[in-house]
Amino acid sequence: MQQISYPAKISQVTIADSFWSRYVELTRTQVLPYQWEALNDRIPGAVPSYCIRNFRIAAGRQKGGHGGWVFQDSDLAKWIEAAAYVLMQGPDPELEKNVDETVDLVCAAQQSDGYLNTYYIINGLEKRWTNLRDNHELYCLGHLIEAAAAYFKATGKDKFLNAVIRYVDLVDNTFGPEPHKLHGYPGHEVIEMALAGLYDLTGDKKHLALAKYFIDERGRAPLYFTEEAEKNGNPSSWEGGPHGLQYYQAALPVREQRDAQGHAVRAVYLYSGMADLGRLTADNELIAACEKLWQSITQKQMYITGSIGSTAYGEAFSFDYDLPNDTVYGETCAAIGLVFFARRMLQLSPDSQYSDVMERALYNGVISGMSLDGKSFFYVNPLEVIPEASEKDFYKAHVKPERQKWFGCACCPPNLARLLASLGSYAYTLGEEGALFMHLYLGGRFSHAVNKLPVDIQVNTNYPWEGSVTIRVSPQSPVSFTYALRIPGWCSQYTLHVNGEPVNQAPGHGYVRISREWKTGDTISFNMDMPVTVNIAHPMLRKNIGLAALSRGPLVYCFEEADNGPNLHLYSLGEHPNFQVQFKKELLGGIQVISSDSLLIDDYNWQEKNLYRNAASELYKKQRLTWIPYYAWANRGKGEMRVWIHK
Amino acid sequence: MQQISYPAKISQVTIADSFWSRYVELTRTQVLPYQWEALNDRIPGAVPSYCIRNFRIAAGRQKGGHGGWVFQDSDLAKWIEAAAYVLMQGPDPELEKNVDETVDLVCAAQQSDGYLNTYYIINGLEKRWTNLRDNHELYCLGHLIEAAAAYFKATGKDKFLNAVIRYVDLVDNTFGPEPHKLHGYPGHEVIEMALAGLYDLTGDKKHLALAKYFIDERGRAPLYFTEEAEKNGNPSSWEGGPHGLQYYQAALPVREQRDAQGHAVRAVYLYSGMADLGRLTADNELIAACEKLWQSITQKQMYITGSIGSTAYGEAFSFDYDLPNDTVYGETCAAIGLVFFARRMLQLSPDSQYSDVMERALYNGVISGMSLDGKSFFYVNPLEVIPEASEKDFYKAHVKPERQKWFGCACCPPNLARLLASLGSYAYTLGEEGALFMHLYLGGRFSHAVNKLPVDIQVNTNYPWEGSVTIRVSPQSPVSFTYALRIPGWCSQYTLHVNGEPVNQAPGHGYVRISREWKTGDTISFNMDMPVTVNIAHPMLRKNIGLAALSRGPLVYCFEEADNGPNLHLYSLGEHPNFQVQFKKELLGGIQVISSDSLLIDDYNWQEKNLYRNAASELYKKQRLTWIPYYAWANRGKGEMRVWIHK
Repeated sequence: MQQISYPAKISQVTIADSFWSRYVELTRTQVLPYQWEALNDRIPGAVPSYCIRNFRIAAGRQKGGHGGWVFQDSDLAKWIEAAAYVLMQGPDPELEKNVDETVDLVCAAQQSDGYLNTYYIINGLEKRWTNLRDNHELYCLGHLIEAAAAYFKATGKDKFLNAVIRYVDLVDNTFGPEPHKLHGYPGHEVIEMALAGLYDLTGDKKHLALAKYFIDERGRAPLYFTEEAEKNGNPSSWEGGPHGLQYYQAALPVREQRDAQGHAVRAVYLYSGMADLGRLTADNELIAACEKLWQSITQKQMYITGSIGSTAYGEAFSFDYDLPNDTVYGETCAAIGLVFFARRMLQLSPDSQYSDVMERALYNGVISGMSLDGKSFFYVNPLEVIPEASEKDFYKAHVKPERQKWFGCACCPPNLARLLASLGSYAYTLGEEGALFMHLYLGGRFSHAVNKLPVDIQVNTNYPWEGSVTIRVSPQSPVSFTYALRIPGWCSQYTLHVNGEPVNQAPGHGYVRISREWKTGDTISFNMDMPVTVNIAHPMLRKNIGLAALSRGPLVYCFEEADNGPNLHLYSLGEHPNFQVQFKKELLGGIQVISSDSLLIDDYNWQEKNLYRNAASELYKKQRLTWIPYYAWANRGKGEMRVWIHK
Repeated sequence: MQQISYPAKISQVTIADSFWSRYVELTRTQVLPYQWEALNDRIPGAVPSYCIRNFRIAAGRQKGGHGGWVFQDSDLAKWIEAAAYVLMQGPDPELEKNVDETVDLVCAAQQSDGYLNTYYIINGLEKRWTNLRDNHELYCLGHLIEAAAAYFKATGKDKFLNAVIRYVDLVDNTFGPEPHKLHGYPGHEVIEMALAGLYDLTGDKKHLALAKYFIDERGRAPLYFTEEAEKNGNPSSWEGGPHGLQYYQAALPVREQRDAQGHAVRAVYLYSGMADLGRLTADNELIAACEKLWQSITQKQMYITGSIGSTAYGEAFSFDYDLPNDTVYGETCAAIGLVFFARRMLQLSPDSQYSDVMERALYNGVISGMSLDGKSFFYVNPLEVIPEASEKDFYKAHVKPERQKWFGCACCPPNLARLLASLGSYAYTLGEEGALFMHLYLGGRFSHAVNKLPVDIQVNTNYPWEGSVTIRVSPQSPVSFTYALRIPGWCSQYTLHVNGEPVNQAPGHGYVRISREWKTGDTISFNMDMPVTVNIAHPMLRKNIGLAALSRGPLVYCFEEADNGPNLHLYSLGEHPNFQVQFKKELLGGIQVISSDSLLIDDYNWQEKNLYRNAASELYKKQRLTWIPYYAWANRGKGEMRVWIHK
């Protein structure tokens, strides 16, 4: 049996961090208000969302047809969820009023039997549940559940929660193993983890059982999606292609799935739900499947930035070690989903194989999805961009060199908002006997209780810019528990002291566990060496042979045209890069800039106009190169960018 | 004004060559009979052609609907053309009888007004000429013209030629500048060079004028394809994408086109027609446009194999220096079209910038399109293949690791047949005062006349396996003319003697011109050093940075899984490849095999399962690597292949 732990509650964590506070504040003051405008179709020049409008029509407050995607409801749900997380961290009456009114609107659209999905309410309820594969009803419900649970926890108001539970009851009466029920499951997963979370809140075993039904029924013969498609005469657009029904992770039972396959967001959402269910039902077989799928992603299908999804075809995983840098999909939502999955695996087993990836995704492939002003977004997070190629190569049309204001399919921006607004809950998990696992080094405060005794944790750090972390542990009165610190995978040298005394324990599964009686004012001093690291990729990662990438601490770096001019492919790092690191307060919100030597191919003697020539000795000139953290790229206009440089 | 020359006639050249004779013989004994079976839908397991069947239905000899593509007629026309070229080289009564009957069938389908296109004859003549952009009527006519001209030249029988001229008359009455005529032009070019060839044969200025009309009207405002699409309510599928109407080379007048753009086969067919028209009408503006377009291709958009077309999206050119090796299109027909264009540029100006590319394409990207037994074909000619990627990466589905028996769209196999059957006409051009330009070093005989005096040229060589060429010049009686030998671009060292006396003249535009009075038995001895060459690509060719490719003489080499095992990306050439060259008679029809040292990344210390790691010193082991000529790849089952190796 695994060790099981629980994440910190959002309300317990106060983030006062040189890196993240800006993001948290941005989420509250910029992102949520901006997205509110977007959901109301009030951003000039942006693709309309139709989201609020759909609910107004469904509630009978306005006339018109359904607008946007079939899953548009989920954008509003994610916004409510994010707003609720903000409200958990402190009062904001204006925001709360807005959320209350939004919740009223959502509830006003609910049908008498509990049904609540604007697409079918507007287009005809008789068609509901007829296309589970494509039409995202259960997906939208999943997000409604998560939003309602967060809103209830934040405000204590149960109107939305009750409405959603009524809808869940309807779904429970509609789906299940009994012959008169539909034996279906969602084409896009999320309801599984949402129901697990609902069960956490309600303790109603029916909610857990429904999650289990959706997970276990998935991919079982006879395949529901095949039968549904036959009934509809509507074959899946992925049939015949490399994904088939694994696009939906629905070609074989989930317990038999070993390779992460198909649409990357759907995949990690499913695996998150599987991990929740495995934990809540002590289902070791399911947990073992999660571990295999975790390894499939992180050992064979993950970019150095923590992004996942190698192909635009289906926004999907492709195959082992296929990680092209320039045609990558790397959807922001997929990296977010990987963070969800990581935290759930951490709850099962505090092992840095999970937290290292969580940190890698958070500091790189997740926040690269948003501009530094919180007003524009990437759906796709490439590791190599050439604007000309994005414009002229049809197969790179998805790779944008600039963030967009909003999207027709705007899953990513509100997903980012809800992650950033709940960041504190990813920093710590609490295990048995008050054991505290610290996964992320966020400055600020964590106030919780060990055996009902209040314990206050105060963290001071300039992470990720510097590697020193000071932690003051202040229990109300002396208490014994284990304080476990993650030794990041990127960190090969560190010192660790408690009250000046060295801790010489070797880490286990990536954590040093300090077990002692803690008194107020006990201080942990953790100092990680944070040199610039030159990374290479696994030899089977074909596209990265001969290339290197820089990182420092958890941050992956890149180099941009804005600093280095165009034709970044002409640079190689050379054997003596002579790194210098300098904090530039004014640049890109304040970053540690790396500069390195490099060799630049001098194309002087190519004036001969031949495309190919005898390999005479090539000419290089030495040139200084400027590197910035990957997450901060594309904040200075359109230009080339590369993460991987020739060696 | 350019120097103008004429290609050798097919009937004048007898190929007795250690390399090409096998191809010529294969074309006659295997390819044409095999394709005949294919055109008659008699190849088990191959996609049916419907080609003969369509003509039988159109001729009223059979009932049924039109099968296959709208341009299916052209496959039969190309087959007839190839067969006619074979007949020019010697009698083959059985083949001639078959062609005669086929011609009878084609002519039997002709309508009373001259119209002759099975798609519209079967589907309704009232729709003809309504979709010039997509429906290939003028393209099919172009191929009929070329077939009929070849058949007439080969047999002296004029039935087919007369039928085609009647059809051309109909087209001439339908299209033209007059207000009552259509101001259109073909969506797929070829008729331009076909009409130029017809004019060569008939001397009828109407034929030349029609070619000129199609060329000059193309891309002129108001755009015909835009107007036609509005009339049909049928917008081009390329609109909004990177090609637009340049997919058809039809967005601006051809004289203003500077970059080779759009569908690669259409492009080089158009440029070939432009070069013909430029030559026949002494139109220097048009010739200048051809030169620009030639440079655009060969200086910025051509693979080292002479393949062209970087993207599967539209089987097209993409943009300068965008030459990916693994998603390349490199259609066999496009390389063939580049050979057509090259020869026409050579007729305008005997400059080795044209013949070098012609040779590069012929020995590499053209013949790679056919298996060594002449029975299976590549449409796409990649420079890097991983079978797993072709299977699992949707965007590499076009890149096949094995040649196919036939194709639904089978333009390439008969195109190869007509090129191989007419190879002799690419070896020589004849200029003013009997000047003879020798472009290709084919063993055999060339019998022509200088000032009506028969001159016989006998060439002995083991090219491309060895670099020595002996040419015996035998005029009936002594005669003065210039014998110009191409010094290949790949050749940096050579010796040249006439009757043992060294010729010390420096080459001009890539040709050494030996002007003298030639007597029977005069012997030119040309010895080219043919070392293994390590090639690098232009620095702007991003995908080839850090890579090298081997060639020897005109042949580009590759390395295959069959010789070297899988994971070819793990090899690098190292600084001391220690090349050895050995002729293996039994291997792949007889080839010079190159073996080299290489460094193989030893992934022993990656057992740690991380995808990324600190760049410790990598481990390599030395391993011998076997290289084969690129054209001979994929003749030993499915496996990996690479042209470019890490340096």
